[in-house]
Order: sequence, then C-alpha cells, then structure tokens
Amino acid sequence: MKVTILNCSLKKSAEPSNTAALLKEMTDFFKQEGAETVTFRIADLEIPPGVKTKMGDSDDWPAIHEHITGSQIVIIGSPTWMGILSSLAQRVLERMDAMISETDDQGRPILYNRVGGVVVTGNQDGAKHVMSDIAGALVQLGLTVPGHSYTFWNKGPNASENYLDTDYGHEWSRNTGHMAAHNLLSVAKALEASPIPFHKSMKQ
Amino acid sequence: MKVTILNCSLKKSAEPSNTAALLKEMTDFFKQEGAETVTFRIADLEIPPGVKTKMGDSDDWPAIHEHITGSQIVIIGSPTWMGILSSLAQRVLERMDAMISETDDQGRPILYNRVGGVVVTGNQDGAKHVMSDIAGALVQLGLTVPGHSYTFWNKGPNASENYLDTDYGHEWSRNTGHMAAHNLLSVAKALEASPIPFHKSMKQ
Amino acid sequence: MKVTILNCSLKKSAEPSNTAALLKEMTDFFKQEGAETVTFRIADLEIPPGVKTKMGDSDDWPAIHEHITGSQIVIIGSPTWMGILSSLAQRVLERMDAMISETDDQGRPILYNRVGGVVVTGNQDGAKHVMSDIAGALVQLGLTVPGHSYTFWNKGPNASENYLDTDYGHEWSRNTGHMAAHNLLSVAKALEASPIPFHKSMKQ
Amino acid sequence: MKVTILNCSLKKSAEPSNTAALLKEMTDFFKQEGAETVTFRIADLEIPPGVKTKMGDSDDWPAIHEHITGSQIVIIGSPTWMGILSSLAQRVLERMDAMISETDDQGRPILYNRVGGVVVTGNQDGAKHVMSDIAGALVQLGLTVPGHSYTFWNKGPNASENYLDTDYGHEWSRNTGHMAAHNLLSVAKALEASPIPFHKSMKQ
Repeated sequence: MKVTILNCSLKKSAEPSNTAALLKEMTDFFKQEGAETVTFRIADLEIPPGVKTKMGDSDDWPAIHEHITGSQIVIIGSPTWMGILSSLAQRVLERMDAMISETDDQGRPILYNRVGGVVVTGNQDGAKHVMSDIAGALVQLGLTVPGHSYTFWNKGPNASENYLDTDYGHEWSRNTGHMAAHNLLSVAKALEASPIPFHKSMKQ
Repeated sequence: MKVTILNCSLKKSAEPSNTAALLKEMTDFFKQEGAETVTFRIADLEIPPGVKTKMGDSDDWPAIHEHITGSQIVIIGSPTWMGILSSLAQRVLERMDAMISETDDQGRPILYNRVGGVVVTGNQDGAKHVMSDIAGALVQLGLTVPGHSYTFWNKGPNASENYLDTDYGHEWSRNTGHMAAHNLLSVAKALEASPIPFHKSMKQ
Repeated sequence: MKVTILNCSLKKSAEPSNTAALLKEMTDFFKQEGAETVTFRIADLEIPPGVKTKMGDSDDWPAIHEHITGSQIVIIGSPTWMGILSSLAQRVLERMDAMISETDDQGRPILYNRVGGVVVTGNQDGAKHVMSDIAGALVQLGLTVPGHSYTFWNKGPNASENYLDTDYGHEWSRNTGHMAAHNLLSVAKALEASPIPFHKSMKQ
Repeated sequence: MKVTILNCSLKKSAEPSNTAALLKEMTDFFKQEGAETVTFRIADLEIPPGVKTKMGDSDDWPAIHEHITGSQIVIIGSPTWMGILSSLAQRVLERMDAMISETDDQGRPILYNRVGGVVVTGNQDGAKHVMSDIAGALVQLGLTVPGHSYTFWNKGPNASENYLDTDYGHEWSRNTGHMAAHNLLSVAKALEASPIPFHKSMKQ
C-alpha cells in the first residue's frame, strides 16, 4: 500500500510546520501498518499555477503526479487562513484537475479506486470547512473519501497558540488521526479487492 | 442492497420537485441493478429541530433512522437557496448527528461501511458547495463517499428556469447520475465484502 | 435605530441557548447606545419551509418580515452543526429570499441601506464558514455587511463544553461582539445619512 | 475615489482571462463615474506564500499593499476551480492577513472604512461559494461589503464554454456588475462622509 502525503503549509521546511506535526501522527500509523509513505512539502517546490500536468520547464508537479497515480492513498494537509484552505492546498487541487481527463487501462478515471484523506491545522477555526472543501474536490477528482478519514486541530476564539506551542487537544487529534489512517487503509484494501468496475457512463 | 433516499426539497409532494426529478434518474438505475430504494419526501413529514433520535411525540424521524441504519446506501437530495443546502437537508444532517454515538455489534460507529451520495438542483449556482458541505457532513457521520457519487443541475446566471422547465443540460446530469449510482453500488459492495474492521481508536 | 435579532438555536426558550448568551453581549451594547432591539427565538415559532412571505395560515414569518423591513440592523445568530449553519438559520434565509423582489418607494431592493451581522456559537469548529455563508446570503439579499460585524465562540477539537459551561475565551468573544455592534451601528448611521441611491441597473 | 482590482486568474496576461473580461464591465463603470482604477494581474507577479507584508527580496506584494491602503474600494476577481476560489485569490487573502494588525492614525484597523467587492467566473458552478468565502474574508480583514457588490458568470452543468466563448447570460452579468460598482461607490462615499469612529474594543 502506497501513500502520497502533500503538506500544503505556507512555510518551507526550514521552519517548523504545525501541519507536518499533525501529519506525522498519520504517517507513523501508516508505517507501522507496513504502508510506504512519501511526503512532499509543497512550499519547498516550484508548482506554478495552472490546470495542466506540466506548466513550463521548471515545474516540480510532474513528479508528484507520478507519485499520486502510483499510490492507493492520497492525503492533503492544509493550514487554515481566514477559515479557508491554504493557497498551496488549492494549488495542488488545481494541478490535480488535469487528472480528471486521464483514464486507466480499463477506461476508468485514473483516480478511481484510490482513497483520499485530509489533515487540517489552524490556530482558531475553520477545519471542517477546509475538510469539506478538500473532500468535495477529491470526490470530484474521482477519489473515494472514507468515513472519518480526517483529523484536525485548532484552539478556538482568539487563540494565539499553534499546534506545536501546546498540548491542548493533542490526544483527541492524534487518536482521530489514527482512526483516519486505519479507515483509509481499510477502504483502500476493500477497493483493491473489489474495484469499481468500468461503466459506459464514464465515457462522457 | 438497500438504498434510503432523502428528498430535502422545500415543497410537499403535492407540488412537482426538481430535486425529485433528478433523484429519479438515480433511483431508476438502482432499481435496474436490483437494489431496493425507499424515498422520503422530508417536507411531507414532521421532523422537529434537534440532535436526538426522538424529539417529542409527533416526530417522523425514528422511522427514517431505522431505514438509514438498515441501508447500505444513503442519498441526500437538496435544492440550493442562496448557494446553501436547504433547511430540510440541514435538518436531516442535524438529526443524523445522534448516530455519531451509536455503534454496531463490533463497536464501530453505526454508519461505518455504508456509502453516501448527493444530488443537487438549483436554478443558478451552488451545487458544488452544497455537495461538499453534505459530503463533508456524511464523512463526519462515518459514511464513505465514493468518487463521483453526486450529480447536479443548475442553469447559470440569472436563470429563471428550473430543471423541470427545460431540457438544458439534462443529458449530462442524467449520465452523471448513472455514474454516481454505479459508483455507490460498487463501493457499497466492496465494503460489504471487506468491511472496515474495528480499531481501538474508535472507542474515543 | 432599530435592530432585529433572529436567534436560530435549535432549542426552544425553555432550554438555555448558548447562542442567546453570546447574542446578549451585542444586545446590551445596542441598548446602551440607545438602539431598540427585538429578538425572535425561531425555535419557538412556526416558520414553515418555503420562499414566499406567507406560507399557509399558521405562519409566524410575516411578523418577522415586518420587523426586518422596519429595522436598520439585522443580526442572525446560529449554532454550528457539523460545521454548517443551523437548519433554522437557513430557514430564515430562505424566507428572506422573497424580499429580493420587493422594492422601496424609490425602486431600490427593500433591504438596501440596512446592515447585517452574524453571531455563531458551537462546541468545536465552523464559525467562520457559518459566518461567511450567512454574510454571503445577506449580501445577496441586499444588506451591507460591515467589517468586523460578527463574533463567535467555539472550543476547538473534541470539545464537549458549550459557551455556557465555561469562561474559556469569553472575554475575546464579548469584546469582539462589542466591536461588531459598534461597527453595525456606525455603518447603519452612515447609510442613513448617505443612502445608496437608485440606479437603473436595479430594475433588472 | 480610488479602486484597486486584483485579478486572480491562473493565466498570465499573455492569455485572455475570462475574469478580466467580466472585471472590465466593473472597471468601465468606475471610470465613467470618475473613479481611478488600478488593476493587478496576480499571475504576472511574484507573490510568495506567507502572511507577512514582505516575504523575501523578490516580492511584488508590497506595491499592492500600498495601493490597497491608498484605495477606498478593493475588488477581488477569481475564477472557480472545483467550486473553490483560485489559489491566487487565496494567496492574496493570505498576504492581506498581515493588515489585520495594522492601524490608521486613529487606532482603527487599517482596512476600516473601505469597501470590498467580488467578481467570479467559471465554466460550471461555484460562484456563490467563492463570493461568500471571499466576502467573509474581507469582513474578517475589516472591509465593509455592500449589498449586491458582486457579479458572476458560469454556464451550468458540463459546460465546456467559458465567458469569452459565448454571449450566454452576459447581459445579466454585466448589469449586475454595474449595480455592484454603483453600490460599492455609494457605500464608499457614505463611509467617507461618516466613517466608523474608533472604539476601545478595537484595541484587543
């Protein structure tokens, strides 16, 4: 089982990322269950705007594209800014848009029979909106989103603290992350054993 | 395979419902594939506000609750008002909230290993937001949302026409509905064959 | 200056409402500044679904309609369920939809030159999404939404406590509520002194 | 009256932008009314991710920051991708986040007494969600969002056409754009004549 994790923090890896810290809880679980994980820190890479698989000569997206289509599980990790997903999370979704018209060798959309999960951090509020927007986009792209396949952390009104600054609520966020990883693995295995077959309506 | 369909149109069944018309495309597909469908027209029923399974003496919700927990597939059909899901769709989600604390005989949340889909109609805009909000809520409730498990119809800016007034875009909406029904059935079967097993993190 | 406040809690007034408690901070400020406030507890009233000003014989909406069109300020207070506005908040927006086609004596949409604000409570997350959805709907209805015209309270991941159970974050939510009330009053006065004039594009 | 327009199309100015075409309807109206407009094509500029006013040496944001704080009206133009605002629109909101802690010479948040509007294009659906998310963010930043201060265009289900490919619905989108520009100018003038005064709650 292969897992591609896209950390859409606005910070490059020189700075500590709260999203990375919460994603790690999921990654550890995946590894412990024998799944291979690859994490991309989007802010470190050059991912130009656009909705094609390759946008110009210095585009780091094609390598991510290859990892996604070689994985059974895709995780989007996003911080929350003004209650909205990060610009880098939306950048990733825009670049995935090109996958809608790709098909596998049986004519099914390329992302069918793969599952998607979401991890959201923020200091105040907005995790469920970000989760729903990303989950809705993943469903539009053809991925299946299992029940309880997300975790999140925030700290309520006027919070000046981030995930890494405190232990507040960590246990819940960690446990929920383990449940999410378990559900993602389980549904990925179910779809591996009994994949969605081709249907003529997919030809549209 | 049993399917519960909740039509959250604001209109009672004496009036024609655009949402019902688009839901029918899915229902026909389900029947043709041998699945049993039961449709509830929420506006015809008394569903008081609240987040418990039973809210007072004249509450029609408990019967719906029983149908949902006896089904493998749940479909929410909603019109769009100001780009937001209908008050009856949100009412249904609020009443489903009580299911979060119910578990099956193996200790898993009661809605695990069931799949959810969405149908949205509107005369102007908002289908994807409604789909994402409902899909996000279904995932929070424990249902799995398959790739391409929704269909929708609207008519763009300043449209005064509804689904039943025109043929505009019907073919796409119908075909997408068939694809959704196919995907919902396929993922429901996959989870029936290989269900998400219990994990200790579900005890939280 | 007249203020209509719509408390869209799912609970009737026999039960304590967290939304009412936070709304009171705004109401106190309005009163202290000499504004008249009227609060409707939506769950106590009969507001049938629909998008007309009068829906059947036992409809409590027409009285609210009259209060709204007689006010300069309208506040929607909503709890958060699964990160979404309450079914009663959406019910109120649906019923306000009929106001889009009403005009004042100068041909302007009836809700022009009035301002709208939002109060959101919840035990976990979702305030900003609810605020944006309601603010966006108010703008579609013709109301002006001042900067910082909202307040909210939640308690982050896995919170089992509500606003009335704790003092956590109250000071911020109260202060933000006062700022919102001040801004709503100030913009309402500015529009009273210099109203948006009629323009032919409003005739559409 | 000065207007800053941020076109958040994913395309650089070498390619025709549907968002630019619809924004032009607003710009023409502003010019005709004697307002000065400056438009930034975000995709042409280097705007690194982050939430500070200056992010590194080659950052084009500080010039935009200066224009925004020198304007009474700010317009965000965004395409729609999977029903969500563009990554460049969210980038702009993230960079504006730093303005929350800036104040004017009277201690008010720097964006007070300015108004914001939204223009959304897309080939299918999602305008109202994008409008609400952006309007909600502008209100969080301190801008006032007038009633009917947006316009949009899309083409319903399965639309393969963009704004520039057809005349479908243009008249409504154009007229709505004129109404929006009129309302933005009117509320900006009202706030110029009667600005929101300082209040101690702003000190938080």
